[in-house]
Formats: sequence, C-alpha cells, structure tokens
Amino acid sequence: LGQLGEFGLIALLRETLKPANPEVVKGIGDDAAILRPKAGHDWVLTTDMLVEGRHFNLKTTHPWALGAKSISVNLSDCAAMGARPFAAVVSLGIPGKFPVGAVRAFYSGMKAWAGNFGVDIVGGDTVSSDKMVVNVAVLGEVKRGKALTRSGAVNGDALLVTGTLGDSGAGLHSLTHPGKKAASVRPMLEKRHLTPLPRFVVGNFLSAAGLATSCIDVSDGLSSEVNHLASESHLGAEVHEEAVPLSASLEHYCVELKKDPLRFALDGGEDYELLFTVPVKRLGEALRRIPGETGCPVTAIGRMTAASGGVVLIGGKGSRKPLGRGGFDHFGG
Amino acid sequence: LGQLGEFGLIALLRETLKPANPEVVKGIGDDAAILRPKAGHDWVLTTDMLVEGRHFNLKTTHPWALGAKSISVNLSDCAAMGARPFAAVVSLGIPGKFPVGAVRAFYSGMKAWAGNFGVDIVGGDTVSSDKMVVNVAVLGEVKRGKALTRSGAVNGDALLVTGTLGDSGAGLHSLTHPGKKAASVRPMLEKRHLTPLPRFVVGNFLSAAGLATSCIDVSDGLSSEVNHLASESHLGAEVHEEAVPLSASLEHYCVELKKDPLRFALDGGEDYELLFTVPVKRLGEALRRIPGETGCPVTAIGRMTAASGGVVLIGGKGSRKPLGRGGFDHFGG
Repeated sequence: LGQLGEFGLIALLRETLKPANPEVVKGIGDDAAILRPKAGHDWVLTTDMLVEGRHFNLKTTHPWALGAKSISVNLSDCAAMGARPFAAVVSLGIPGKFPVGAVRAFYSGMKAWAGNFGVDIVGGDTVSSDKMVVNVAVLGEVKRGKALTRSGAVNGDALLVTGTLGDSGAGLHSLTHPGKKAASVRPMLEKRHLTPLPRFVVGNFLSAAGLATSCIDVSDGLSSEVNHLASESHLGAEVHEEAVPLSASLEHYCVELKKDPLRFALDGGEDYELLFTVPVKRLGEALRRIPGETGCPVTAIGRMTAASGGVVLIGGKGSRKPLGRGGFDHFGG
Repeated sequence: LGQLGEFGLIALLRETLKPANPEVVKGIGDDAAILRPKAGHDWVLTTDMLVEGRHFNLKTTHPWALGAKSISVNLSDCAAMGARPFAAVVSLGIPGKFPVGAVRAFYSGMKAWAGNFGVDIVGGDTVSSDKMVVNVAVLGEVKRGKALTRSGAVNGDALLVTGTLGDSGAGLHSLTHPGKKAASVRPMLEKRHLTPLPRFVVGNFLSAAGLATSCIDVSDGLSSEVNHLASESHLGAEVHEEAVPLSASLEHYCVELKKDPLRFALDGGEDYELLFTVPVKRLGEALRRIPGETGCPVTAIGRMTAASGGVVLIGGKGSRKPLGRGGFDHFGG
C-alpha cells in the first residue's frame, strides 16, 4: 500500500464517500456497514473478482477505468435481476510498489461510477498482494417477489437483447492490437470494453412492468448466455444470426481488420447488455416501450423452444448449427 | 480451475449448498442471490480478502482450514456488530494448476464452517489467478437499531475482552518455526491460528442485552483495536498489562521458546476475540452473564478515559507507557 498505508486509504475513502441512500445507516468505518431494508422489498447480492493479467492489464487499462469497470460489472448483475443497486463493498489487493496516484485514480473511478448510478461504497478491505486484484460485492433492491431470474422463460417466449453486441470484444482486440486501421472507431470500441455501462434502468423497467419472464447479463458472450437461460429454464433456443445487433463501429472495424463481427458478438464477452425473454404476445409492447421508456435500443433475436431442440444458431439461408457455450469454436466456424 | 472448470465448480457448489435460512429466497445459480429481509431488522455487510503469501501459506495451511478461516474472519466482523450472520458470497482466484482435490477441500472447509454457524453460501465467482486469493462478503441480521459500533464508548466505561489473546500469533510462530519444544501445546495454538472461532454468540448477546456501548473484533492485535475503539469514540483508554488474558498454552510455549507472551497478545493479531465496553455500573452483570449465558470466558482489562489521557498500557508496578497502534514497537518494549 506504499506511502498511503491501509489506514490512510480507509480515511481517504471514508472522507470522500458519504452515503446517500436511506438504506445505508452506517458506511465505512466500523467492522461492518449497517443497512436498513425498506418494507416490501427483496435485496439481491452479487460479487465479482477481477485479477490483473487475467481480466485487465495495467498497460492498457488506466486505474480510473478499472475502478469504474469493477463497479460496473456488478451493477450489470443487479440489472439482470431487475434490481436497483445501492451499496457496494470493495476489496483491493495492491502491490507494495503501486503508486499512490494510481490508487487514488482507481478509487476516483470507482467513486465516480458508483456515484453516477446512485451506489454507496459502504466498506471494504485493502491488502497487499503481488498482482492487483479487485473484488466488489453489490447489494440491490427490487420489489418483493419481482426479481428477474434465468429460470422463468417459457417455450415460445421471444428472446431479446439490449444495445449492440461484440463492441467490447473488438475493443479488447483493438487495445491489444494497436494500429492505424479503423482509427475512427477504435476509441468507441475501447471505451465499451474499458467502461461498460450497466443496463439496470432497463432491468428495473422489465421488473416493474412485469415484461420479462427471464433475464441474464451478457458477460461471457451471447452464445454462453443463451445457453445459460435455456438450461436454467429447461428449454432450447433459436438465435437468428442476422438479427444479432451489431454497431456500425464494429462492422467498420471488422471490415478494416478482416475479422468476423459475429465472432465478437457471440464469443467476445463483456458487453454487459441484457438478454431476456418476453411472452410472444407482449413482444410488440416490449419493442415499443423499452426504447420509449428507458432510452435503450432493444432487438428481438430469436425465441425459446423445447429443450429437445437444443440451442441453435440459424443462418441467413436457414442453416442450423448448434450454438455451444463457447460459441464458434464448438462448431468449427 | 484445471480439470473442474468454472462451470463444474458452480455446479458443485450449487448441488452441495442448499440454503437453510428463510432470508435466502434464491442462492447460487443466477446473476445474484435473492434475499428477503425480516421486518424489524437491520442487516450488516462486511468483506475480507485473503491473499496467498500474505495472509496464508499453502505449505502450512491445509485448503480445508483456509476455507473455514475465510468464512470465520467475516463472521467475526458480524459478531463485533452484534449480528447473526446468515449469507455469504465467495470469490476465489485459483492458479490453473491447483489440484481439484485441494479446491474441493477448500470448499468443503468453507461449507462446514458456514454450516456450523448457520450461514448459507449464496453466490460467488471463480477466476484463475497466479496466486490463490479468497474474498468473502457476509450479511448478518441484527434487531433494528441494535447494531454495536466502535463509536459508542463513554468515558469511564469498563473495557472487556472475550477468551484469551495471543494464541493465534503464537500459533503462526509455531507453524513457521517447527521444532520439538513445547510440542504439547503447539496443536492448540496452531488450531487457534488456522481455524479461529467467531464469537458471534457473544456479540448477539451483547446486542440483545443492551450491555455493550461499543465493540470491535481483535483481528490486528489488542493494541491496534484498543486504539480503534478509543479514536472512534473520541476517548482514551487504559489497559492493565497483568489483566490481559493469556492461555496456559501460550504461557508454556513462551517459556519454552523464550518469548514474551504479552507481545503475542498485544501485536499478534488474528485472535478474533471481541473487545468491548460496558457501563461500569453493569460490569458485574457482564462478568456474570456473559460466561453464564454464552459459555464464553470474559475478562475486564481496563477502562475508557478522556481523549487527553491517550491510550496507555499500565504495568504491574504502575508504570504507564503509550500503547501505539503497532503495539510494542512504538515504545521500544
């Protein structure tokens, strides 16, 4: 922890991070945070660990962006449950020689991102470690009994996804393959990788409107997440290749770099969009109300089928290929 | 994650860890756990990170014990708040070559320890990392407004501690200095280091009985924790050296190894006993009811004073030395 020391870090956090949510009775500064549930609500709890060299590289990720992202990935899990995140605890392992300025930048990014989304950082732990490691756990609030799960999809439900897919994967490719090609779109793609936006406004809406029968966030790539939804709901699924929403930036990047954009969309991961199902008779309502009431684009990409149908990708000419958890690699595409 | 893979680990956990607490609506298997607060209660949230090489060494710590301890240190924080822990999320970073048997042993220890204390493991994250790293976040429940804090002590309050201090520090010394001396007491001391018992039965009692004005768990050594209580309560404190409770095992170990047992008690850390204050007129009641109703020994070791008095250690002959956060080293003892 270098010059700052653990005590200094806690003092720094405590001073700058005053809780704003009424649920937070006491934040940083005791053995634990004290939280007060509101009547008629459930809470959701999720955690994610990010390890240097595995999930991020300090050569390509600024500590500020890392702080922001470490919050964002957990908020995305809350979004997938339809919950409003309100409190986070953060554990940070830092190499002894880590510059104090970088630690401050990390906390600054974390604080900014948490603040943007109304989340109080209510506690944590700082330890020294050989490589940087960040663990965040987040609590969210949802109306009692209204949390969205992966397991509620019904045979015939429409399958939808927010935003565009593959941008984050292409952004990571761009960060690790710097060059002059596609220079105009690289910043947008890299930003989607470094500081993804959690879609919890959409998640909240889906829960409040009772629209979604199931929901998951796209953290490991579409192919993997469709398989999760299908298996947890004991169903199969069909995804139409041509319906998968791709950004113009991704298409341009892939033309310039001679890459297949669908590979980024299916296997790239870290898009943090929401993948969810709605009853087919409410599909029109979903396609109208979600963009209208949340400002977030949404696309129907397929439907849920009987489990016996498996999880398949349907090509432009009607070809059917199994869509494995690992995406393309499983069917040699 | 080797042969088991992340998917295998999640399936393993999910299968073996069925939630038992009514607060847990849905445990492992979705983007987040779903929890349902009971009316009239607050929740506390705490997190701790343990890093290989810094907090534990796989040469001296069996993965089973590490699993148990990673739960225990968080339960101790709940204990210090007077809360009953009921749910935990666990993040695990594991080297790729880590043996599957060791991962299973780790989870088995974690599960056993959580089960012993009525805690459901409701979610987590498994990632690969160069060195093993474990992060646990725990939720506890306490009657509304009854959480114990570090900041409620009043000038003149008696200062008490549960159990004995220094055993864990001596246990670590024993693990890192194997030998034949004091062989009879090494297993007990090492056990106290490897699988400390959280004192939340005492914490719950202190909260329910309204006995404690402040409370903290002894994770960093008595000297550090007395300073925390004093500074958070804007007070000073006096600790009587001869009153600090030492086990017969620690005394024997220190005679044989020519060590000062007080050094382990003041600076050793990781005892996970509770340090707390009670109004002086209720001291007799505390000394009678705590052992009587929780089975846990308790000792009065000093009292809170005005802030101007500082935090001091009073020797057998009435000597007064400042008791720094780092303990002995600060006053050349």
